[in-house]
Amino acid sequence: MKNIYIYPDELERFALAVLEAHGVRADVAHCVAEGLVQTSLRGVDSHGIRLFPHYLEALKAGRLNPDPAYGFEKTAAATGRLDGDHTFGHAAGSEGMKRAVQLAKEAGAGIVAVYNSSHFGAAAYYALQAAQQGLMGFSFTHADSLMHSFGGTRPYFGTNPICMAVPCEDEEPFCLDMATSRVTWNKVLQRRETGESVPMGWGVDEQGQETTDPNLVSSLQPIGEYKGYGMAMMIEILCALLTGMPFGRHICRMYADPIEQKRLLGHFFMAMRIDCFVNEKEFKSRLQQLMTEVRNEPAAEPEQPVMVPGDPEKQAAAERSRTGIPVSRSLWEKFQDYSNRFDINIQPVER
Amino acid sequence: MKNIYIYPDELERFALAVLEAHGVRADVAHCVAEGLVQTSLRGVDSHGIRLFPHYLEALKAGRLNPDPAYGFEKTAAATGRLDGDHTFGHAAGSEGMKRAVQLAKEAGAGIVAVYNSSHFGAAAYYALQAAQQGLMGFSFTHADSLMHSFGGTRPYFGTNPICMAVPCEDEEPFCLDMATSRVTWNKVLQRRETGESVPMGWGVDEQGQETTDPNLVSSLQPIGEYKGYGMAMMIEILCALLTGMPFGRHICRMYADPIEQKRLLGHFFMAMRIDCFVNEKEFKSRLQQLMTEVRNEPAAEPEQPVMVPGDPEKQAAAERSRTGIPVSRSLWEKFQDYSNRFDINIQPVER
Repeated sequence: MKNIYIYPDELERFALAVLEAHGVRADVAHCVAEGLVQTSLRGVDSHGIRLFPHYLEALKAGRLNPDPAYGFEKTAAATGRLDGDHTFGHAAGSEGMKRAVQLAKEAGAGIVAVYNSSHFGAAAYYALQAAQQGLMGFSFTHADSLMHSFGGTRPYFGTNPICMAVPCEDEEPFCLDMATSRVTWNKVLQRRETGESVPMGWGVDEQGQETTDPNLVSSLQPIGEYKGYGMAMMIEILCALLTGMPFGRHICRMYADPIEQKRLLGHFFMAMRIDCFVNEKEFKSRLQQLMTEVRNEPAAEPEQPVMVPGDPEKQAAAERSRTGIPVSRSLWEKFQDYSNRFDINIQPVER
Repeated sequence: MKNIYIYPDELERFALAVLEAHGVRADVAHCVAEGLVQTSLRGVDSHGIRLFPHYLEALKAGRLNPDPAYGFEKTAAATGRLDGDHTFGHAAGSEGMKRAVQLAKEAGAGIVAVYNSSHFGAAAYYALQAAQQGLMGFSFTHADSLMHSFGGTRPYFGTNPICMAVPCEDEEPFCLDMATSRVTWNKVLQRRETGESVPMGWGVDEQGQETTDPNLVSSLQPIGEYKGYGMAMMIEILCALLTGMPFGRHICRMYADPIEQKRLLGHFFMAMRIDCFVNEKEFKSRLQQLMTEVRNEPAAEPEQPVMVPGDPEKQAAAERSRTGIPVSRSLWEKFQDYSNRFDINIQPVER
């Protein structure tokens, strides 16, 4: 079954309207719609519009709060805590980064720990918000147990991601957004569907042994063995301990736990002013020089130039701006259902 | 040839005296001696006392400044820049973290970019300084090109490390200190000496192809392929671009470039107050609970319990406090030479 394609503006308008029809406050709905569509536009389908029906189910079940009362407490010149009041992670996260940027504008750097939040999609959405305002942005979240503990038999930490975005001179911000596992769970699920084996190094079975059988994979291998596992713990300390949220195996699972249960996730955001360290214009020009040099490094395969982090996402965004965002048939059927129930039009790209 | 063992206090006293005999200012010499010995004590021999003769050669050649005039500029409540005046990285780094801690005590978080520095040894030395004062500490440095560029044929970035230390309740701080490459260059050199092959995944040859021949390895594989390479670039942005220092292949190489040439390295330090986010006592108690849970996770090999980052270093430190720090015969010969030339006694552990 071929995908349906929808232009990003059209998809965002539709998602916003469907959220508002479900009683979600406009500013909250805006973050969710923008975050999901931006992520799909950038080619990161695992964390994009695919999640929309799940979020709506979580909303209807009471996991997500459509009308949050954020509680922000500035605790020092550069630090603060934000109560997300159990709303969509996209909204609590955006509010957290907004506060971090405000603190950074005054104090040079701003750090905000967000608690009582939920799944926030792609970490890049928040770091890019800082970069779009000319600051360096960092975003972190924890997640439910899925990463194999080095030396153990089962997962304890999630595939806790790390993300940094930096404004550039003549192109979209530099953006590194990566899970600390080798691959995502979705890639294992895809192999289960196709029946293909998985490469060694992706995951382990319930005895903690490497396996190539996707049906036996029960947890994902961290990058660099103990190193990715150590980074996941570092991120857990920032996102669970500095926020007072549950950690490790105590975290409410996105799918496996009852959907009315609140996730109680924490995030950690940081923004930094470049001009507190070096001349901003020179910084951007040197970053451009660095990126150009890296892209011109001799390639192992001549037809595949060396890339810098974020290049695949920039290429996807350029292509999908033209072609529209691909939407699977099953997701499209759900869209048509929302369209009919709430009388909200959605127009696919004509082919 | 068997190693010689020297107790840490004895080794630190000796290193300090040799540095002072070379005209190194007392506060600078203290950082170098303490940093190298602490690192060896923690079992990280690659970045420990082994480097001492190299630093002395660099000092004599004029690469390192024995009497630096640090220039610190506070640029906002939470940020500052430090000119290391080309002294030993251990001294410039300690001064940088001291300033970051001072800023954090006032502003909740403190970030200091250090420029005009040199090789700083193990990143843990600095992050632990913050943790020993009750703050969370982060330290980063860049290094000369040694990491294979993903998709390329040669190295551009160094094995740029990331490090975080966090104070604990009833034990030494949590400390993650890791290069973003799979293994260190020293491990490849060891295999060249023994003639053993290296496992796939450690390094690539000059065509950018994986190899198991240690003599053909010309650059080190990043962890998680493009992920470690992306992290190395993130750290390069923090340590080279935010400091105004050279980046990538422009960095003066530790060994391959003339030893009188200044390294012009940059570092990035951050300290954060825990009590600006959560109750500090609860935080430490929950961190202890997390670490205990992880250590009690079911192990793949029953006799090898699951560890948390820093556990191997804590075990090494406990053991080496008793046995002394192992010193190779060739290093011991150099020590005896310093001992004779400067009339400074050094006493090995009696067996």
